[in-house]
Amino acid sequence: MKFADDIVFGRKPVEELLGTNRTIDKILLEQKMSGPFEKEIRQYAKNNKIPLSKVPQNKLDKLSGFKNHQGIVVFTTAIQFYELEDVLQHSFEQGKVPFFLILDNITDVRNIGAIARSAHWFGVDAIVYSLKNAAALNSTAVKISAGALLELPVCRVSSIIKALEYLKQSGLQIVGTDVSKETFSKKEAFIGPLAIVMGSEEKGMSREVSALCDALMHIPGKGNIDSLNVSVATGVVLYEVFKTRTEQ
Amino acid sequence: MKFADDIVFGRKPVEELLGTNRTIDKILLEQKMSGPFEKEIRQYAKNNKIPLSKVPQNKLDKLSGFKNHQGIVVFTTAIQFYELEDVLQHSFEQGKVPFFLILDNITDVRNIGAIARSAHWFGVDAIVYSLKNAAALNSTAVKISAGALLELPVCRVSSIIKALEYLKQSGLQIVGTDVSKETFSKKEAFIGPLAIVMGSEEKGMSREVSALCDALMHIPGKGNIDSLNVSVATGVVLYEVFKTRTEQ
Repeated sequence: MKFADDIVFGRKPVEELLGTNRTIDKILLEQKMSGPFEKEIRQYAKNNKIPLSKVPQNKLDKLSGFKNHQGIVVFTTAIQFYELEDVLQHSFEQGKVPFFLILDNITDVRNIGAIARSAHWFGVDAIVYSLKNAAALNSTAVKISAGALLELPVCRVSSIIKALEYLKQSGLQIVGTDVSKETFSKKEAFIGPLAIVMGSEEKGMSREVSALCDALMHIPGKGNIDSLNVSVATGVVLYEVFKTRTEQ
Repeated sequence: MKFADDIVFGRKPVEELLGTNRTIDKILLEQKMSGPFEKEIRQYAKNNKIPLSKVPQNKLDKLSGFKNHQGIVVFTTAIQFYELEDVLQHSFEQGKVPFFLILDNITDVRNIGAIARSAHWFGVDAIVYSLKNAAALNSTAVKISAGALLELPVCRVSSIIKALEYLKQSGLQIVGTDVSKETFSKKEAFIGPLAIVMGSEEKGMSREVSALCDALMHIPGKGNIDSLNVSVATGVVLYEVFKTRTEQ
């Protein structure tokens, strides 16, 4: 069995794969599958915080090139995932001022790639994103990120809300962005432990996430176009944080 | 004949199209075509600064859905193109401080779209780009730009060098960017008439373009990733200009 590809299918190859230290991007199961194998895989996905979806058989047929997938297709990734708690602790231990980037429902792989490049460039400690609606962090994403996704820790969490609550309890300021709101930027917040939250292009941040923010940064501009592209907006905010921190 | 589509082919439909005020994005001719029609089209393209390429017949076959294209396929666009001279004069007449964005060899349609959104948001007067290696400014580009390409003047020029020389003679400071160079940003330049030049992701600005710049702005950062995504880098530079101008 080869692991060079991004995709592995069939029960035995998948079981072998799960016994290695290869990172799993996501697992797809045939929607009607049940029984001990299905239960075992679900448990594994839950324990290891791996996105799992149930999909129609014809999707698995196509993904496997109409080979004998036995109801399971798994995507691997070259990216290493980290535990949020570990990265934060490491950041404090290194004497750094934590700087996290939380992506709330950003699913476009090109935006994720461009954002990862910016995050790496501007010294972010880790990107945090939700297992739900997760973009495929496959070889395409790594390529678009110009390798940044291999260098920058990425944390998958089951709940963005819980992750933000944890970071808040750990002393981080939570700063969201909202291009359509009045400005009440709190630049002093940038100098201390910080988590920047970026919402999706379509919906922005969810109301729950917005409520958890200590401040909402506004990107000044004019014109009647709704907003900036999310990777551009993220770049501008991270740049502002980096500049504020280095100039202080 | 319908003009709703982005594509028109066949000699008579194209001649009808050229008699309307629809904007032409680009013209493709069969590579072996010659004679009075070919000459007429070439002259038209030259006079109206429309990109024209000679391509193999099978490309035209595919683009036309294997219909009778008679050696010519034309792409239309909802975008209105402007003369650089007119936009600059208009800017001065309106009492504005000119702010132009020059794209040197940026061909990815998604980057162009994201850049147009940023340019519109941060108050750029016009985007200037070269006919050579021009990205297709079709309905996809308009969609990615969230409509910004329909609101912001776009100037097509036959030579970026000549356009920069013209802007320089008209009193604009030419500011390029180079993430890999030492910083010697000249923020005072942002307050006066200004042209920002962004180079392609792969090659950056050409040497000739670089030599014409009055200053090269550096985007501070860390990490060993080569550079930021070009639309992110453009967004950061335009943001910096906008902020400098509004805060002065």
